Amino acid sequence: MKKILNVPQNAVPEMLAGMVKAHSGLITLLSGTQAVVRKDAPVKGKVAIISGGGSGHEPAHAGYVGRGMLDAALAGAVFAAPPLDDALAALKHCATEQGVLFIIKNYTGDRLLFDMLSEEAEDMGIPTRSVVVADDVAIAEREGTPGRRGVAGTVLIHKIAGARADLGGSLEEVYQVAQKAASWVRSMGVALSPCTLPGSTQPSFTLDEDQIEIGIGIHGEAGVRREKLQPARELTQKLLEKILVDLPYQAGDEVAVLVNGMGSTPLMELYIVFNEVETFLHSKGITIYKALVGEYMTSLDMAGFSITLLKLDAELKELLDHPCLTPCWVQS
Amino acid sequence: MKKILNVPQNAVPEMLAGMVKAHSGLITLLSGTQAVVRKDAPVKGKVAIISGGGSGHEPAHAGYVGRGMLDAALAGAVFAAPPLDDALAALKHCATEQGVLFIIKNYTGDRLLFDMLSEEAEDMGIPTRSVVVADDVAIAEREGTPGRRGVAGTVLIHKIAGARADLGGSLEEVYQVAQKAASWVRSMGVALSPCTLPGSTQPSFTLDEDQIEIGIGIHGEAGVRREKLQPARELTQKLLEKILVDLPYQAGDEVAVLVNGMGSTPLMELYIVFNEVETFLHSKGITIYKALVGEYMTSLDMAGFSITLLKLDAELKELLDHPCLTPCWVQS
Repeated sequence: MKKILNVPQNAVPEMLAGMVKAHSGLITLLSGTQAVVRKDAPVKGKVAIISGGGSGHEPAHAGYVGRGMLDAALAGAVFAAPPLDDALAALKHCATEQGVLFIIKNYTGDRLLFDMLSEEAEDMGIPTRSVVVADDVAIAEREGTPGRRGVAGTVLIHKIAGARADLGGSLEEVYQVAQKAASWVRSMGVALSPCTLPGSTQPSFTLDEDQIEIGIGIHGEAGVRREKLQPARELTQKLLEKILVDLPYQAGDEVAVLVNGMGSTPLMELYIVFNEVETFLHSKGITIYKALVGEYMTSLDMAGFSITLLKLDAELKELLDHPCLTPCWVQS
Repeated sequence: MKKILNVPQNAVPEMLAGMVKAHSGLITLLSGTQAVVRKDAPVKGKVAIISGGGSGHEPAHAGYVGRGMLDAALAGAVFAAPPLDDALAALKHCATEQGVLFIIKNYTGDRLLFDMLSEEAEDMGIPTRSVVVADDVAIAEREGTPGRRGVAGTVLIHKIAGARADLGGSLEEVYQVAQKAASWVRSMGVALSPCTLPGSTQPSFTLDEDQIEIGIGIHGEAGVRREKLQPARELTQKLLEKILVDLPYQAGDEVAVLVNGMGSTPLMELYIVFNEVETFLHSKGITIYKALVGEYMTSLDMAGFSITLLKLDAELKELLDHPCLTPCWVQS
């Protein structure tokens, strides 16, 4: 698998250097770390929000640092939890008297990191709360895991918590609405081809030319089952049925939909999927209040997509619509 | 090459249906056509701007329809010029008394279409001007072509012309600034792997596992030469040197840079390239005023990237910064 790199082991630091240079009005890198922070952090009087995790999911998470979303994004090596030292540096840099919310994707390494960070914060007298996102409905089918994985739905939690904090919400208010959104978000994905890590010559798994992998995660893990390549309509319905069963809807409910590209799937195909999502939800009486179509939480060069549904109420709609200014969020 | 489709020949109409559903507050499809227009068109008192071309370049062009950019985007079949009937419908729908600017990528089919459209407009008494974008510096090396190709730089012309029109510019003013920007924009691209058209089983060309193709276009055309895969730094410098020779710069000049993904290249790699672009331009005393990194003008599932430089003056800087509201332009 050809990649545009210099030295594979420098891919993450060079990428982060590129990001902060490209968006130097909005974000900066904390010296000696891989923590990307708002240029104007700490933002006095506002709850700070810190998220992050392994790299390879770009634009997550550094692309969502900025007014109305995150104050800091931690970046580990590819698919690896960030180091505690970076997390501590970000915490010290961004924390305000209003406190700090951590938004955590549900993986063992990330949870461990943020648990340690919470303890350190307590020692420093910084009030914190944590929200764990575990939106992947595929994973319930697998035993021996630490629970459902956090996937693309996480970016919607960034948006909602970030908006509430930007509007002056207290730590408890920001936590409560982020928790509500996390409990109302569901995702499921499919891969057409695996990803390959920088410096590796082997993909993370192999698929035949007519095979797809349903229920994949965002770290090159294999999914829950393999099927033959099938029409977009059939595939979309299959994912949506699994999502809808997991958090039942009533006719008249409103949702945000995210059709997320895994890294190498063209936008043309994502919009074809969205067209099917809309048709299917319409047939169930579910209204799409907001649609996001594009690459929001990728898995390096994996081909495929995930569908995320977030159930909405008046508060979540207001927060989704609240303006934000980050390197990669399309405000439309 | 696996694709997420229903029936290949319906890929474009289904994609367009998905786009207008996803962004129904901003854009709509003119009935019976593949022309995507601003929902509030015609916009009284404003010069209208129409662009477009073959599909397969998403988010170009429909993703750039909205306030501050295009009034209409025409979409042909994949890599094929749009039909005249659609262009006429868009013209009739969007034209105002202030007139219409056409922004045309330099391909025989697109030029022919817009020539016919201009004649029809004249018959209808609608004042029009046309700007042809031909930013690809690779093509000067090839004989027997209709001149340089219009590639990713075209989206910067959309932005600039759209902003001037949004600010109340006359047709002559919008035309003049778009023409200036078109004369100051240069691009060059490289492919790591070719694209495959929907319904086709064969890619548009073939490359060995250690080969890249320099000087590729956006329609699956082969480039100007093949080389071995090389570090991002070397490759970036090679493209930039060709661009800089073509439109010489002085130390102190300011530019906008677009590092554009061709469709299946991860954002991580695009930011690594941008990091090299910044280092190289900095060494030449050239300042980056604005950076865009992402997929702006793709070629289906081609892997690779292009670099675009646009020389800036005070007017172009103001217009690049002018707010816009479209489905896919990141306003940051």
